[in-house]
Amino acid sequence: MDVRDLGEFGLIERLRRALGDAADERLVAGIGDDAAAWRAGGGYAVATTDTLVAGVHFLAGEVAWRDVGWKALAVNISDVAAMGATPSFALVTLCVPPDTSVEAMDELYAGLRECVDAYGVTVAGGDIVSSPVFTITVALSGDAVARGDGTPGLLRRGGARAGDAVAVTGPLGGSAGGLRVLTEGAGRTSAAERLVARHMRPRPRVDAGRAAVSAGAACAIDISDGLVQDLGHVCEASGLGADLWLDRVPLDEALVAVYPDDAQALAASGGEDYELIVVAPEDVLRRAEVMLGGPLAVIGVMRAGTGVRVLDARGREVRLPTRGWDHLARPESDA
Amino acid sequence: MDVRDLGEFGLIERLRRALGDAADERLVAGIGDDAAAWRAGGGYAVATTDTLVAGVHFLAGEVAWRDVGWKALAVNISDVAAMGATPSFALVTLCVPPDTSVEAMDELYAGLRECVDAYGVTVAGGDIVSSPVFTITVALSGDAVARGDGTPGLLRRGGARAGDAVAVTGPLGGSAGGLRVLTEGAGRTSAAERLVARHMRPRPRVDAGRAAVSAGAACAIDISDGLVQDLGHVCEASGLGADLWLDRVPLDEALVAVYPDDAQALAASGGEDYELIVVAPEDVLRRAEVMLGGPLAVIGVMRAGTGVRVLDARGREVRLPTRGWDHLARPESDA
Repeated sequence: MDVRDLGEFGLIERLRRALGDAADERLVAGIGDDAAAWRAGGGYAVATTDTLVAGVHFLAGEVAWRDVGWKALAVNISDVAAMGATPSFALVTLCVPPDTSVEAMDELYAGLRECVDAYGVTVAGGDIVSSPVFTITVALSGDAVARGDGTPGLLRRGGARAGDAVAVTGPLGGSAGGLRVLTEGAGRTSAAERLVARHMRPRPRVDAGRAAVSAGAACAIDISDGLVQDLGHVCEASGLGADLWLDRVPLDEALVAVYPDDAQALAASGGEDYELIVVAPEDVLRRAEVMLGGPLAVIGVMRAGTGVRVLDARGREVRLPTRGWDHLARPESDA
Repeated sequence: MDVRDLGEFGLIERLRRALGDAADERLVAGIGDDAAAWRAGGGYAVATTDTLVAGVHFLAGEVAWRDVGWKALAVNISDVAAMGATPSFALVTLCVPPDTSVEAMDELYAGLRECVDAYGVTVAGGDIVSSPVFTITVALSGDAVARGDGTPGLLRRGGARAGDAVAVTGPLGGSAGGLRVLTEGAGRTSAAERLVARHMRPRPRVDAGRAAVSAGAACAIDISDGLVQDLGHVCEASGLGADLWLDRVPLDEALVAVYPDDAQALAASGGEDYELIVVAPEDVLRRAEVMLGGPLAVIGVMRAGTGVRVLDARGREVRLPTRGWDHLARPESDA
């Protein structure tokens, strides 16, 4: 058996079984959440890591190195945001083919710098090694506070309750549309360029995660694999099911302009939007909206049961063409 | 210009210039030390990351996956040890070719588990992605204490003073001997097997780093690039030079048995021993020895000036065949 039969989640589950039980008593969130978290001083330390591999996560000839630098850090900031924490210190690991141009690396650093400045993160170290394949891995630390009652001020995948509303922090599908522009070409209109920017320059929602914690929310996840799949992770971790009202999902404007027929499907399952799904009672969401100064779109509800039921405007169940993203699975197993 | 002209250290220096000045005021140690460190609660958080790439850092056909798992974590523990800190939580990132066997990954996890158990570390998360080249990256957090006077209880590369003694925590050269056994073959005698074990199963010196801090030491580095090169990093960071007495360098017994003629050169420049160089006044080293319950070998002294002068038993300067390890440099630039 090889790892593509097991898939990414199978391999993570096997790692969890092999290693997850040797837990330090300070650990609050371990393998299987957006980030790890442990007690540190009077609050909580949060840590996450994410990797971009050339040829797998981006095509070096078709995207700007500056965008790769931004994205490599931004996807990690998004995981910290999804915990309701504030990002602080980053370690950057580069696996570099020796014939890579120094100019390309300068551009990469410039993109990292733009993201560092935008989010107030400090690059504090890392590792640079030779490799046949360019890979950038960022490990990011963050801080979370304790709530008034002393419990961790963290948003967890497993923190949903039946009856909670499911909300998203912004319009979806733009990143998947941008990927499609890059791979299929679509005429580089300004709307198409906006989609590419959504794909390569995600804006993680640290503000929304923190507002959700302050408002009293306990559950969130960032949309990296795709709305339906990521909401499925919340269902699994919370031991619940969810109803998702497809017509309520806010659609990226540029996506509607460029791919009007597929916009809804791309928003539901496209992935890499790096908005947050926040799951909480309606009154908590309203408080979070006030703190955030902007709307959260309610798109569904948690219920007893399992899995995500996707419903159209008439309440009929919809089958979506793809479910989302598994980094290792054989394409045919993803039907 | 490509990155091999710049070399690993040139690329790190360029990263430091591009990103190093955007520093959070909590930062105590940034780019250019064994690990990053920042104030957290009443103490200090430490974080480091290190990568092993198949075909670059190990040959998948010739080493056991279990050993790769051990080593990937151990080299990070060594960086935390070199700061005088205690390792705590690890994030494990795997870049995996989809045709990798599940059995290989199970062995890798088992080796990680052995190292986790040996050092009391908790694997708290990570990332698994598809890649054409197997790569394992570990990011490791740790904790350091404040000293009695409120300053950080950390060992820094830049903490040496002129007149300080240079000590190592154990015999050297075994790992380089093991690499030579693996690449050249040497008849698999029990001594040769011990060398391979030194190469694939390094035992980082958390005990020695902590004892050094408790004794009042302020400077250490772990031996990853090679004794002379790593001591050179201390010289550079401390603005000093060092005299190294080659005949005092303790030699790995198995190394002397297998490669008697090259043992001294391999111990001086071979790398990957993951013992510590501790630089401190003699009385501090004696206190550390008592706490550690074992000897520290004094092999040199810090002096005004720059660079490492390697001296033989008669005080004559010795030129060594190689200087150490640069992951990206062209071979001819390493003369």
